[in-house]
Amino acid sequence: MSKVKDVLENLREKIQIHNPRIVNLLSEFYATALLLFFGIGVVCQFVLSHEKLNTWINVNVGWGFALGLCVLLTSKTSGGHMNPAVSLLMVTLKRLSWTDFFLYCIVQTLGAFVGSALAYVVYLDKIAEYSHGLKLVSGANATAGLFTSFPGAHLSNCGAFIDQVAGTAVLTTCVAGIIDKRNGVPGWVHPILFGVTLITIGNSFGMNLGYPINPARDLGPRIFAYLIGYGGEVFSFHNYYFWIPVIAPLIGGLIGAWTYILLVGSHIPDPDKHVVAEKDEELQALG
Amino acid sequence: MSKVKDVLENLREKIQIHNPRIVNLLSEFYATALLLFFGIGVVCQFVLSHEKLNTWINVNVGWGFALGLCVLLTSKTSGGHMNPAVSLLMVTLKRLSWTDFFLYCIVQTLGAFVGSALAYVVYLDKIAEYSHGLKLVSGANATAGLFTSFPGAHLSNCGAFIDQVAGTAVLTTCVAGIIDKRNGVPGWVHPILFGVTLITIGNSFGMNLGYPINPARDLGPRIFAYLIGYGGEVFSFHNYYFWIPVIAPLIGGLIGAWTYILLVGSHIPDPDKHVVAEKDEELQALG
Amino acid sequence: MSKVKDVLENLREKIQIHNPRIVNLLSEFYATALLLFFGIGVVCQFVLSHEKLNTWINVNVGWGFALGLCVLLTSKTSGGHMNPAVSLLMVTLKRLSWTDFFLYCIVQTLGAFVGSALAYVVYLDKIAEYSHGLKLVSGANATAGLFTSFPGAHLSNCGAFIDQVAGTAVLTTCVAGIIDKRNGVPGWVHPILFGVTLITIGNSFGMNLGYPINPARDLGPRIFAYLIGYGGEVFSFHNYYFWIPVIAPLIGGLIGAWTYILLVGSHIPDPDKHVVAEKDEELQALG
Amino acid sequence: MSKVKDVLENLREKIQIHNPRIVNLLSEFYATALLLFFGIGVVCQFVLSHEKLNTWINVNVGWGFALGLCVLLTSKTSGGHMNPAVSLLMVTLKRLSWTDFFLYCIVQTLGAFVGSALAYVVYLDKIAEYSHGLKLVSGANATAGLFTSFPGAHLSNCGAFIDQVAGTAVLTTCVAGIIDKRNGVPGWVHPILFGVTLITIGNSFGMNLGYPINPARDLGPRIFAYLIGYGGEVFSFHNYYFWIPVIAPLIGGLIGAWTYILLVGSHIPDPDKHVVAEKDEELQALG
Repeated sequence: MSKVKDVLENLREKIQIHNPRIVNLLSEFYATALLLFFGIGVVCQFVLSHEKLNTWINVNVGWGFALGLCVLLTSKTSGGHMNPAVSLLMVTLKRLSWTDFFLYCIVQTLGAFVGSALAYVVYLDKIAEYSHGLKLVSGANATAGLFTSFPGAHLSNCGAFIDQVAGTAVLTTCVAGIIDKRNGVPGWVHPILFGVTLITIGNSFGMNLGYPINPARDLGPRIFAYLIGYGGEVFSFHNYYFWIPVIAPLIGGLIGAWTYILLVGSHIPDPDKHVVAEKDEELQALG
Repeated sequence: MSKVKDVLENLREKIQIHNPRIVNLLSEFYATALLLFFGIGVVCQFVLSHEKLNTWINVNVGWGFALGLCVLLTSKTSGGHMNPAVSLLMVTLKRLSWTDFFLYCIVQTLGAFVGSALAYVVYLDKIAEYSHGLKLVSGANATAGLFTSFPGAHLSNCGAFIDQVAGTAVLTTCVAGIIDKRNGVPGWVHPILFGVTLITIGNSFGMNLGYPINPARDLGPRIFAYLIGYGGEVFSFHNYYFWIPVIAPLIGGLIGAWTYILLVGSHIPDPDKHVVAEKDEELQALG
Repeated sequence: MSKVKDVLENLREKIQIHNPRIVNLLSEFYATALLLFFGIGVVCQFVLSHEKLNTWINVNVGWGFALGLCVLLTSKTSGGHMNPAVSLLMVTLKRLSWTDFFLYCIVQTLGAFVGSALAYVVYLDKIAEYSHGLKLVSGANATAGLFTSFPGAHLSNCGAFIDQVAGTAVLTTCVAGIIDKRNGVPGWVHPILFGVTLITIGNSFGMNLGYPINPARDLGPRIFAYLIGYGGEVFSFHNYYFWIPVIAPLIGGLIGAWTYILLVGSHIPDPDKHVVAEKDEELQALG
Repeated sequence: MSKVKDVLENLREKIQIHNPRIVNLLSEFYATALLLFFGIGVVCQFVLSHEKLNTWINVNVGWGFALGLCVLLTSKTSGGHMNPAVSLLMVTLKRLSWTDFFLYCIVQTLGAFVGSALAYVVYLDKIAEYSHGLKLVSGANATAGLFTSFPGAHLSNCGAFIDQVAGTAVLTTCVAGIIDKRNGVPGWVHPILFGVTLITIGNSFGMNLGYPINPARDLGPRIFAYLIGYGGEVFSFHNYYFWIPVIAPLIGGLIGAWTYILLVGSHIPDPDKHVVAEKDEELQALG
C-alpha cells in the first residue's frame, strides 16, 4: 500500500501544476473532450444502427452517466462545468471571473472539438458504410447530425430558441439545488445527480433538438463537421440556426438557477432551529 | 470561496422570507410547476414522437427522476409534497394543519397548471404538426391526453377508481417506509427513493390510466386544457371521469401509508437492544 | 416536529407488538404481498399491452425496484426475505430457526397469494378485454402466465430445474456478498443492491422461465390462479412442472451463498492490518 | 445475533486462507466466472430471443450491474479486476507484481471459461432451438457470437483495434478517477460506479464489437467455443481478428488511466487549503 502512494505521489511531486487557472483550464478541456468522446459515440450508435443498438433510453442514459463521470473526474479541480452556460452562472455567483469565463469557453469548445474528432475516428468505418461516403447535412444518409444539432422541419427558429432556453434552465435549476449546501447532499453525490438531471432532460426536452443545451458541446463539433467537409451548410442550415444553441443556453442557464435561488434557495430555514432533530437523523443515517 | 458565500448569503439576508407558511406555499407552487414542466414534456415526447423518442421506460424514468429532483430542491422548505394526497397524509400525521392543507392544494394545482402551460409552449410547434391544429380529446390525432388522464375504452369508472386508489396507496406506502426514521435511510437519499418508487409504480400500475395518482397533477393541467380550447369534453368524457383522479388518490394515500404504519412501522424494535452491533455496522459504513 | 412524534409514537406505545416472531411473520406477509402486488402488476402491463406499455427492461426494473423497496420497508423487522430460498439460507446461517422457517414459508406464500389477488382486481377490466373472458393456461389469449411461471415448448423440465437453481444461486451469491459486513456496504444500501441484483438476474437468467427463483412467489399465485378458475392445468402443465420453481430455488439458494462464503467471504483479510490506510479513506469518504 | 457470528466466524477460523496471493487468485477466478456467468446469460437473452427479451439497454444494464456486483463481492480481497487490462494498469501503479499479473491473467481467463460454460448449460435447450443444432461462427443461425466477439463486415481489423483501445481507455480513465482518493468517493460506491462506467461504454462504444475491452472475457469464452465444436474459425475468422481484443485492451487500459493521472489527477489541489470549508461540507453530508 505504501508503494502505491509512492508511484503517484512521487509523480505528483514532480509534475503537479500549482497555478489554479492552468489546472482548471486543463481540466475543462479534458472533461469536455471526454464528455464528447462518450456523447458522440452515443449518438453514432443511435443513428448508425438505425436506432437499434441504441434506443432513446440508451441515448439519455449514455449522455447522463457520461456527464456524471466527467464531472466526478474533475470535481476537485475545475468542478467540471464543460458548458459555458454553467460557467456563466458561476460568474454571476462570483465563483468565476470574466477572464476565466472566456478562457473556459475557449477550452470547452476546443475540448468538444477534440472529443468529437476522437469519436469520429472510432466510428470511421461505420460512418462510411452508413453514409456511402457522402457528407450530407440533411436527407436520408445525412451524418452531420452525428456531431451537432439540426432542427427538424416542424420547428421554427423561435421554437428552437425557446427549447434551448427551457432545457438549459431546468439543467441549472437542478444544479443550483443540488449544490446548495443547505439541501445537504454529500459532495460525492453531486456528479451522479447531475447525470440524473441530464437523463431527465433527455426524457422531457430532447425531442425538438436533441438537447444540446451547451454552447461548447454544439459549436465545437459543428466546427469539426465543417472542417472535415460537411460544408457551410452546417452553419447556414435552417436560416442560420447554428447561433441559437450557442446563445440561448447562456440565457436559460441564468434564468433557471436564479429562479431557484430567488424562490426557494434563499428561504431555506437555518438548521440551527432544528439542531436536536438533525443530530437525531445524523445518527440514524449512520446506523 | 468566501466571495461565493457573499453573493448568496448577502442576497439571503436581504430577501429571505421568514414566514414558514409563505415559504412553504412558494415551494409547493415551485416544485409542482417544475414537476409538471418536466412531466408534460415527458408525455409530449412519448405521444408526439409516436412512442419512438420516448418509450415507456423513458416515461417512467423521466417522471420518476423529475419527482426525485423536485423533492430534493424543496426538501428543506415544504418537503416537496406536490400532491394533495401526500399533504392529506401529513395532516393525519399532524405534520400539516387543515388550513395549510387547503392552501397547499390550491398552490399545487396552480403550479401544475403553470408547469403544463410552460411545457405546452416548448412543444407548440410539434403539437401543431401532430394534431393538424385540432384540439381533440379522443380519436387519432387527439392531444388532450398530453396534459391529463383519460381512460381507455376497456376501463370502467369503477376500475379507474380502484386503479387510482391502488397506485396512490403504494406511493404513500413507500413514502411512509422511506421517511420512517427507524428504517435508517439518510435524509438526502429520500428524494431519490421517492423517484424510484414512482418509476416502480409506472412499471406496475401505469397501464390503465398512466398513473396520475395526484389530484393536483391531474386537475391543474385539465383546467389548462379546457382553457386553451379542448372544450368541456375534458370534464365530461367517459361519464365525467375527471373527478376520479381527484378524489381516489386522497383515499388511497391514507390507506397505503397507514397500513404500513399499523402493520410494520409501529412494530420495529427499538435500536437500543442491538446497540453494540449497530455501532459495529456504523464504523463499517464509514470504512 | 414534536407533534409528529406524538402521533406515531403514541400509536406505537398503544399497539406495538413485542413478540418478535409475530412482528416478523406479519412483516414477511406484508412484504411478500406488496412485492407481488407490484410484481404481478408489472407482468400484467407487459403481457396485456402486448409488450408495449412495458418492455423487458420495465419488467426487470419494476421487479427489481419493487424488491428493493419491500426489503427496505421491512429491513428492521424480519429483514424482508419474501422468499423461502432466502429464509432457508438464513437457517443454515443460524439466523432463523426451523420453526420460523416453516412459518415464514406459509406467510410468504399467503402474502404472495394476497398480493396477486389485489393486482388481479386492479387489472380485472384489462384482463377481461385481453382474454375475451377465457381462463386459459396456454395458447394465444392465455393469461395464467400473468400469475405464475409456465415453461416454453423449447425447455425440458430438467432445463427448467437447472435454470431455477442457477437463478437463485446468483441471487443468494450477491445477497451474501452485500450483507457481508467485511465488504463494508452501509445497511441502508443493502435493499437497493438487492434490487440491482434482481434486475441483473432478469437481464441474464430471465428468458427461460421469467426468473421466479422464489417458491412463495411462484406457488402462491399459482394456487390463486387455480382457485379463480384456471383449472388443474396450472399444476399439471408440462408434465407437472409446478414443483420445480418450488424445490429448485431452495437448492440454488444454498449453493450460491455458500460458494461465496467458502471461496471469498471466509478469506477477506481482517481490517486491522490496514488500519491507517482505512482511516485515511474514511476521512476522504466524509469529505 | 451472536449465534450468527458464530457460524461464519467459526468457519472462518477453520478455513481462512492466509496467503494473500492464493486468496486473490481465488477471488479473481471466482469474480470473473461470476461475471461471465451473468454476462453470457445477458448475451444469450439478447440473441436467442431475437432482441426482444433483452434489448440493447438490457445488455448494457446487465453487464454493468454484473460488473459492479462482482467487484463488490471481491472488493476486499483481490479488488475484482477480472480484466488483464486493469491488472496491467495496477502493475504500472506498483499495486501488483509482474508475477501476480501473469497469474491473474491465467485465472481470469480460466474464470471466464468456466463462467461461459455454466451459462451455456443454463441456455442449452434454447441454443439448440435457435441454432437447429448447428455450431456456426457466422450466418443466420450462428451462435459463436454468444460467447465472444466477432467483427461485422463493415469493420476493418485496424478499426477493431482502435475500437478496443478506445473502449478500454475510457474504462480505465473512469476507474482511475473513481479510485483517486482525492476525489473523495466512498469505497463502497466504487463498484457501483464501475458498473455505471461499463453501462456508459456500452452506450457509446458498443456498436462495433460489443465492447469486450477485456482479454480474459474475450479469450476464455473463445477457447470454450472452440472446444465445444465451433471449430478453428473462432480464431481464424476475419483474418485472425481474435488477437485484437486480447492485445488492444492492454494498451488502451494504460493510455486511459495514465492520461487522467497526468492531466487531472496529479494536479488536484491538496485539501488542506480548504480545510474549513470541507469540514462544513462533511457535517452537511451527515445531515
